[in-house]
Amino acid sequence: MAQPAAAKRGIPPKDDFNAWYPFMVEAAELVDKRYPVKGMDVWRPYGWKAMRLIDGLTHAEMERTGHQEVNFPLLIPEQLLEKENRLVARLQRAREEGVDPSELRMDEEATGFAREVFWVRHAGETELDVPMFLRPTSETAMYSMFPLWIRSHADLPLKTYQMVNTFRYETKQTRSFIRVREIHFFEAHTCHVDEADATRQIEEDLEIAARLMHDLCLPTLVARRPLWDTFPGAHYTVGIDVVMPDGRTLQVASVHHYRDQWARAFDVRYEDAQGEQQYCHQTTYGMSERLLGAVVGVHGDDRGLILPPAIAPHQAVIVPVLAKEGADDVLAACRELQAQLRDAGLRVHLDDRDLRPGQKYYDWEIRGVPLRLELGPRDLASGECVLAPRTGGKDSVPLAGATEAVKEALEAVAAELRKRTEKANNTCIHVLPPLTRSATGRLSLAEPVEPGRIYEIPFDGSDAEAAMVEELTGHSFLGDAREPFAKARKCAVSGKSTNRRVWLARSY
Amino acid sequence: MAQPAAAKRGIPPKDDFNAWYPFMVEAAELVDKRYPVKGMDVWRPYGWKAMRLIDGLTHAEMERTGHQEVNFPLLIPEQLLEKENRLVARLQRAREEGVDPSELRMDEEATGFAREVFWVRHAGETELDVPMFLRPTSETAMYSMFPLWIRSHADLPLKTYQMVNTFRYETKQTRSFIRVREIHFFEAHTCHVDEADATRQIEEDLEIAARLMHDLCLPTLVARRPLWDTFPGAHYTVGIDVVMPDGRTLQVASVHHYRDQWARAFDVRYEDAQGEQQYCHQTTYGMSERLLGAVVGVHGDDRGLILPPAIAPHQAVIVPVLAKEGADDVLAACRELQAQLRDAGLRVHLDDRDLRPGQKYYDWEIRGVPLRLELGPRDLASGECVLAPRTGGKDSVPLAGATEAVKEALEAVAAELRKRTEKANNTCIHVLPPLTRSATGRLSLAEPVEPGRIYEIPFDGSDAEAAMVEELTGHSFLGDAREPFAKARKCAVSGKSTNRRVWLARSY
Repeated sequence: MAQPAAAKRGIPPKDDFNAWYPFMVEAAELVDKRYPVKGMDVWRPYGWKAMRLIDGLTHAEMERTGHQEVNFPLLIPEQLLEKENRLVARLQRAREEGVDPSELRMDEEATGFAREVFWVRHAGETELDVPMFLRPTSETAMYSMFPLWIRSHADLPLKTYQMVNTFRYETKQTRSFIRVREIHFFEAHTCHVDEADATRQIEEDLEIAARLMHDLCLPTLVARRPLWDTFPGAHYTVGIDVVMPDGRTLQVASVHHYRDQWARAFDVRYEDAQGEQQYCHQTTYGMSERLLGAVVGVHGDDRGLILPPAIAPHQAVIVPVLAKEGADDVLAACRELQAQLRDAGLRVHLDDRDLRPGQKYYDWEIRGVPLRLELGPRDLASGECVLAPRTGGKDSVPLAGATEAVKEALEAVAAELRKRTEKANNTCIHVLPPLTRSATGRLSLAEPVEPGRIYEIPFDGSDAEAAMVEELTGHSFLGDAREPFAKARKCAVSGKSTNRRVWLARSY
Repeated sequence: MAQPAAAKRGIPPKDDFNAWYPFMVEAAELVDKRYPVKGMDVWRPYGWKAMRLIDGLTHAEMERTGHQEVNFPLLIPEQLLEKENRLVARLQRAREEGVDPSELRMDEEATGFAREVFWVRHAGETELDVPMFLRPTSETAMYSMFPLWIRSHADLPLKTYQMVNTFRYETKQTRSFIRVREIHFFEAHTCHVDEADATRQIEEDLEIAARLMHDLCLPTLVARRPLWDTFPGAHYTVGIDVVMPDGRTLQVASVHHYRDQWARAFDVRYEDAQGEQQYCHQTTYGMSERLLGAVVGVHGDDRGLILPPAIAPHQAVIVPVLAKEGADDVLAACRELQAQLRDAGLRVHLDDRDLRPGQKYYDWEIRGVPLRLELGPRDLASGECVLAPRTGGKDSVPLAGATEAVKEALEAVAAELRKRTEKANNTCIHVLPPLTRSATGRLSLAEPVEPGRIYEIPFDGSDAEAAMVEELTGHSFLGDAREPFAKARKCAVSGKSTNRRVWLARSY
């Protein structure tokens, strides 16, 4: 049997995802990993453009929903971290003692909540009076300013966001976009008059996420995280995960309802209509360059990336097919076609390099350009050009109506990506049969668990039972699906009746 | 005499620029200086939007001139700084010994060139193997990657840029936008086949700067810096300065021709058409949030900011003038007007807050909105609205043709700002009479120097003579004007004939 074309070109097969992914992020010139600091890649123009297009979608959503963009300093003084430490310690104690955290006082000592942050303690030859750290996220920085901006209920809701670089000292293996030490990050932070209004914000955030994921052609799992996997200081966390080709889930967004817990720690208050001081209820919504990692991982194939048209730096590339005769006419027609498509607002590149068409096809396939247009002397003679979608197929269309045809073809590529990924997601999720329990109360699996699968179970057990399930399956609790079972089922562990639909997965 | 309205509102008069400027950046809600780290302000939505609009102009220029956007890591390992240190040491030695730097070897020891950088030496509880610093600028980070991207002359010119946060440990007094420790920064870095092509890049950069400054309505002084004020490793530096109201110059952009000096230090080479390895010639072009500082400082008046329409977050604000009767009709007409203007691509805000019109006028005057539209029941009855440009005057225009009238009024505001600032610049530049020299050779001034002035002199003296002039005047050499005197004049110090037009100024 002949060797597949991709293998000839040195591309690992996508089935070997752990080889394919790191190969592809460099082969498609998204990033360069040769920068001499571990976990800090250089964004190359093509990758950065794709990321900025994703950011553009996010900006548009923020504008639509009345969020305002701010930009906070990168460096956070140590004392603000201590404030956060006290908050977390207080909440841990409340959880252990089973009391409402608002009943506890705020003057506990910090418990040395070890954060994976980079520290700045020196500048030039000077040791700084106050050590500072590079933001891993901006709660502490922002919530020390919000009290200065909020006076009364008329200032609420306060809806802000920023797109910034954040830093985590990852000790695990790093992976481009997925686990890096400098993170291109989006974070929205909001303040509200009460819990109900903050809850409405959570719903709006999930709607924003759904719209973005639609543009990225990514199906998601939206789950309320178990308590032990809730963000520090949060009342609850909703995680949004994408299933990667190896069956592991990648959290690409998370939304946190803080109630008034951070507000109490940072004194974020307002005067209500009756003149009384009240604590704000707060939410945050975070996303990152992982969105691009998910796009790369989910949509690519053995030949390279496939970029959703909404974020492709080149939505279409025009490749002239030149013969000895009429080359000038073909090139002129290609330029005219490019101008026509650009006037319609499309991002179109004309590849007029002095290379054979086959080499160009290969280059743009690797880079995942959703649509290739070919134009040669025969096409020109018949007043047509060839459309070759990256998802397969080929078609000739009249040059005169090319703009509409290109727009339709791009829509079709997006629809095809959504169809493929929905299907992959559905085949990935399996029902875990009820666990069996021995006379001594020991749980065991009814059938072996496969690492590349996500399992769905009805569950209403205790934290201890959840921990047992995690140990038996090697999978973690992703959390409660946003949509519980319509009809009650028997809990896979206790047998009790429940509507809770819980997912188990291996995660990145 | 009645107290001026502005003083009643607590705004310092603009003549007291050292009080006016810091007051205004907060009163207009550009930044909040209460963040607990010196020299690191929080960008508020209005200020960040204005900055992002300036960035948008820069992005458009980069796109027009074929630059590609990249994004490099913030953290730079110490060993790259040592490489730069050796370069600088080598160039200093070359300068002292009066030899061509390319004749010197590159293996000198670093001379501990003290940089004002923030250091990261710890992460979590760990001391890092390799200390890193926060980029003050990205030559070292980028030039360690360029050799991996450039193989042959076909890869040149390489034209890249990025917009990032940079850091300098400023020990002098900080000032919003002008002297800060975290800097919102633009840097373009290019590589060329030879010195002539790099020189062409410098010309392109100056043209880009001129176009941006036109949009910002800022006249500039473009000067080739004296050798002692040239960026380390540069063959020459061209600085672009704006004259602030106190007569001090603010460098808002700089362009550096590196020849092949950095390329030799970082081994940035290419294979030429003959198959020979050659060093690249390089340039950089830097700008920062100082652009916004210049806009604030130059255009503002006793009542607040005046933003050039090209970068105003709201180009126009509509203020309904409501009476008891017909309030709904007026509001509906205001909404319609806003929709009409927005459809034409204008950034228009409708201020429908429950406040008196006078309070709203005051708010938007402080924030420098270039155009105010007033619409009351009488205007509506006559089918008109009132245009009140921030630069003065008032006019009624038909609602039907409002879009054109608004566009023209915005053009007129920009033209008026350019006229005012050109005039201010011209009255600021004075000719310094020739210095007198005593029998013992001691130089002295023919007349006293005023601190708020910029002086122009014909000059062809030595560095030592320049230093004497600086000591006598208390002004620094801004450098040689891009346009020398058309006719030769007598050097103000030596009396020798020269065309060199040199500026002396006090700088920020």
